[in-house]
Amino acid sequence: MDEKVILHYPESKYCFALNSNTLCLRLRISKEDAIDKVEVVYGGKYTFALERKSAVMQRYCEDRLFAYYTVTLSLTDVRVVYIFKITENQKSYYFSEDGLTSQYDFELSYYNCFQYAYINSIDLIKPVEWMSTATFYQIFVDRFHMGNKDKDKSYITMKWEDLPTPKSFAGGDIKGITEKLYYLKDLGVNALYLTPIFSSISNHKYDIKDYLEIDKQFGTKNDLQELITKAHNLGIRVVLDAVFNHCSDQLHQFQDVLEKGKKSQYYSWFIITKDEPLEYEMFGACAYMPKFNTSNPEVCEFLINIATYWIKEFDIDGWRLDVSDEISHDFWRRFRKEVKAVKEECVLIGENWHDANIYLQGDQFDSIMNYAFTKACLDFYAFSKFNAEDFACKLNEILMRNPDQINQMMLNLLDTHDTHRFMTRVNGNQDKLMSALSVTYFFPGAPCIYYGTENAMEGGYDPDCRRSINWELENKKTLVKDLIQLLTKLKHQNEFSMSIVKIYAKEELLILERGDYRLIINESKQAKKIDATEVCFCNYYEEGKLLSGGFVILK
Amino acid sequence: MDEKVILHYPESKYCFALNSNTLCLRLRISKEDAIDKVEVVYGGKYTFALERKSAVMQRYCEDRLFAYYTVTLSLTDVRVVYIFKITENQKSYYFSEDGLTSQYDFELSYYNCFQYAYINSIDLIKPVEWMSTATFYQIFVDRFHMGNKDKDKSYITMKWEDLPTPKSFAGGDIKGITEKLYYLKDLGVNALYLTPIFSSISNHKYDIKDYLEIDKQFGTKNDLQELITKAHNLGIRVVLDAVFNHCSDQLHQFQDVLEKGKKSQYYSWFIITKDEPLEYEMFGACAYMPKFNTSNPEVCEFLINIATYWIKEFDIDGWRLDVSDEISHDFWRRFRKEVKAVKEECVLIGENWHDANIYLQGDQFDSIMNYAFTKACLDFYAFSKFNAEDFACKLNEILMRNPDQINQMMLNLLDTHDTHRFMTRVNGNQDKLMSALSVTYFFPGAPCIYYGTENAMEGGYDPDCRRSINWELENKKTLVKDLIQLLTKLKHQNEFSMSIVKIYAKEELLILERGDYRLIINESKQAKKIDATEVCFCNYYEEGKLLSGGFVILK
Repeated sequence: MDEKVILHYPESKYCFALNSNTLCLRLRISKEDAIDKVEVVYGGKYTFALERKSAVMQRYCEDRLFAYYTVTLSLTDVRVVYIFKITENQKSYYFSEDGLTSQYDFELSYYNCFQYAYINSIDLIKPVEWMSTATFYQIFVDRFHMGNKDKDKSYITMKWEDLPTPKSFAGGDIKGITEKLYYLKDLGVNALYLTPIFSSISNHKYDIKDYLEIDKQFGTKNDLQELITKAHNLGIRVVLDAVFNHCSDQLHQFQDVLEKGKKSQYYSWFIITKDEPLEYEMFGACAYMPKFNTSNPEVCEFLINIATYWIKEFDIDGWRLDVSDEISHDFWRRFRKEVKAVKEECVLIGENWHDANIYLQGDQFDSIMNYAFTKACLDFYAFSKFNAEDFACKLNEILMRNPDQINQMMLNLLDTHDTHRFMTRVNGNQDKLMSALSVTYFFPGAPCIYYGTENAMEGGYDPDCRRSINWELENKKTLVKDLIQLLTKLKHQNEFSMSIVKIYAKEELLILERGDYRLIINESKQAKKIDATEVCFCNYYEEGKLLSGGFVILK
Repeated sequence: MDEKVILHYPESKYCFALNSNTLCLRLRISKEDAIDKVEVVYGGKYTFALERKSAVMQRYCEDRLFAYYTVTLSLTDVRVVYIFKITENQKSYYFSEDGLTSQYDFELSYYNCFQYAYINSIDLIKPVEWMSTATFYQIFVDRFHMGNKDKDKSYITMKWEDLPTPKSFAGGDIKGITEKLYYLKDLGVNALYLTPIFSSISNHKYDIKDYLEIDKQFGTKNDLQELITKAHNLGIRVVLDAVFNHCSDQLHQFQDVLEKGKKSQYYSWFIITKDEPLEYEMFGACAYMPKFNTSNPEVCEFLINIATYWIKEFDIDGWRLDVSDEISHDFWRRFRKEVKAVKEECVLIGENWHDANIYLQGDQFDSIMNYAFTKACLDFYAFSKFNAEDFACKLNEILMRNPDQINQMMLNLLDTHDTHRFMTRVNGNQDKLMSALSVTYFFPGAPCIYYGTENAMEGGYDPDCRRSINWELENKKTLVKDLIQLLTKLKHQNEFSMSIVKIYAKEELLILERGDYRLIINESKQAKKIDATEVCFCNYYEEGKLLSGGFVILK
């Protein structure tokens, strides 16, 4: 057995409580080890020397290098201690804080066993239940639909159908979204994520000058109230974009600093690095987006009041947190507490592009935008870096980054306003888009469809990924729409959405199993025979054969 | 290279900020890899594709299985991203979130590089500076010294020199400690940790019935004020014991629940599992110690007010946190904030017997009672489980469990009121005790001497480890006292205490290097030749030879 490869940390993604008396354990070992059996030997913290139970762990999944064994324990004494017993070639070893040993002294276990000393209910990772059946639709507001035809259109600088430039305005607004709610409902969408809607001079509005006002281009507070009320009536939730890392240099507090320098009462709201001429921390290299100093409690209060205002007054269902990784953990902890006190099922989705486990331990975010998932899809479908097995391994690795509850809330996306559109990455191959969309639904978490994906919309990097939607296609039946509708129906079935996913490759096919359903994908060069039961959806599937580039959803 | 063994997590013990522009990185690899060079390639989060630096990492230490490479980076842009470049047999590999690859695409690095997205000052692990030069002395109050000869002695049930039973009272008190401050100062002690002193019916007082009163057996608030004032005048800090996991069933709030059941306003202060007859969560299996429900904000406030009361009114210097691992992280985060707001240099030391890294990330404790260190010393000196190399490896492994700042604050102990005395574990071998004491001083952190150790006091498990101190030995010169005095002098030198420690074994000798000093320990069966420079202290050292069981401190 390869001892160096074995990994386990208590109170981590390797050991987390599901509720006040249920503990999940994971043990990572080398994929190549010829294991007969993995068990956990566990007991009460104060009785372990005398009284122990054991439970067999199942080999749940594999990634490129490792195999993961898991078990769920129902506990009576929630002060649990444990070690692992691993049997290889009929020889057993114990794995504790002191590593792998052939003997284990239970009398001295209080020095080196693993433990979850007490499951305190307040520390539990509480899932936002609706996320596990959510289908998100991300809207870049200026480019979705213009609803208010009577507004002052003088700010509009592009024709709806033109390709956008970094600074062009197309005229999309909140009323436009409200008008299209039935369209979205029909598509299967039950959650919207809107890019920022607050007062700002840019088209993207990630540089906000007044966080308590709707941008006039986008409408009014009444418009937002109408959107949310109607959306809720249709069972559609609304998540807004919280840009709390930085603001616009137009924000009055920053203007005050520009004017008064050190004498401004807001001087410590920003991170000033030099006084004359004024230099300060900012987003990227954008001087027009000064960074907030969230180590200052006044700033925290200012931002948190904004977050709770829109929940209290407009009943929004969540916040997507822009550049969340550059803001302090301390801020997010306080933020979470105050937001969840107002509305517990308000979802908090960080914009963290990397492994964000440290933010996802129950005290900060519920979820992140799952860009690691995006990259895995690109490596498989677009970049030819992954075969089916590589892709399966990567998807499993991503799952093993976080506890199960978090995985159920991840926002799984193929593209956003900050990336190329997936259709463009796969050179306009709609079959690949549909295949990848299917994966987003079978993977644990909430799929997020970037607006226009249903029309197989294309677009390169910003600003090209932010084109206006073509509403002439509204009533056109397309395969992509059919697929999304089917997948969202699956997602709304509890047996599907609450089931455990199994992801693996077999004979060059990628297989995702979820409850009674199987998604089989053939990105190899050969057609493959499939044992089909009930076919729910297929593409390039003929008479028991899945052709190259095809996929099939089976029941 | 053994890819499966490589381990790195951003924002963890593998990547932590020392201050607002300095980042420490660690990379774990297999000890056996024949590495030519390890580098970190780093840059700004928004410029990494265009502009990068690299820095060579040093092989800092080894444990049983792994080698650890480290580097400290001074940053101008504190939004840092990085990958590792490892060269083996003249071939280079890159290590990123996607594992080990022979090529790395910097253009797409935003998907899979490592990052410390922004060093926010509020998230820094702020060291309690005085801990790095502290020598603690733990006092079990009832058994240390009786100072108040005029008090009502009717509660005393044992003669001072008798062996204690679980329930016996010997008469030690706060005045007794105050009387012995010069003795302690002379020994080199500059910090006291007192077991609980609040109102309680037991001799250990871990079952507290009034947290705002000093137990009458131990004295008065005036006595405590006098102790602290005099101690502070001598440069000695005072840390008290916070028993916040549970209380005595005599606590009036619990008595109220016993009396009124569900109708008590304190019903939700405890974790009641059954109403009639009343069942509730408790410490261990001790019905007289009901567990507090720290998921209840009222309880949090009650306990935090206690913690801040003793700081505000009596200027205590820290809290040792009893059974801290069974209390919620949520509680400790709030606790830390409120305590540090009152006195920033107040140290918080958890009673966590296991790897407690999750509590030691800057948001909860500063330190823990380092029982992993205790166990390593026992395995080397008492249980014959470790040779010098095993011991060196284990000590390094313990260091790699936490960031450097935390290591400087660890409470390193050989024994406490909850273990056998070390002297008894080593069968009364004072040479081993002295050798082990030297290790506690050379190891990063604060040594903690259990009262009476200076007299090489013996004692088995509780209650035997809680014998009364024999004051007839007060003025007796002993080797142990000499050693402690010398070691504390070293500790007070900044060059010693702030220097980086190197721990390794060589020819069966254990060597700890710290600044200009070296501690060499020979627990092998043979005498060993030593290249001695200036000898500061030695035991079984003769003419350049370190005999079996000996040790030497060299400059």
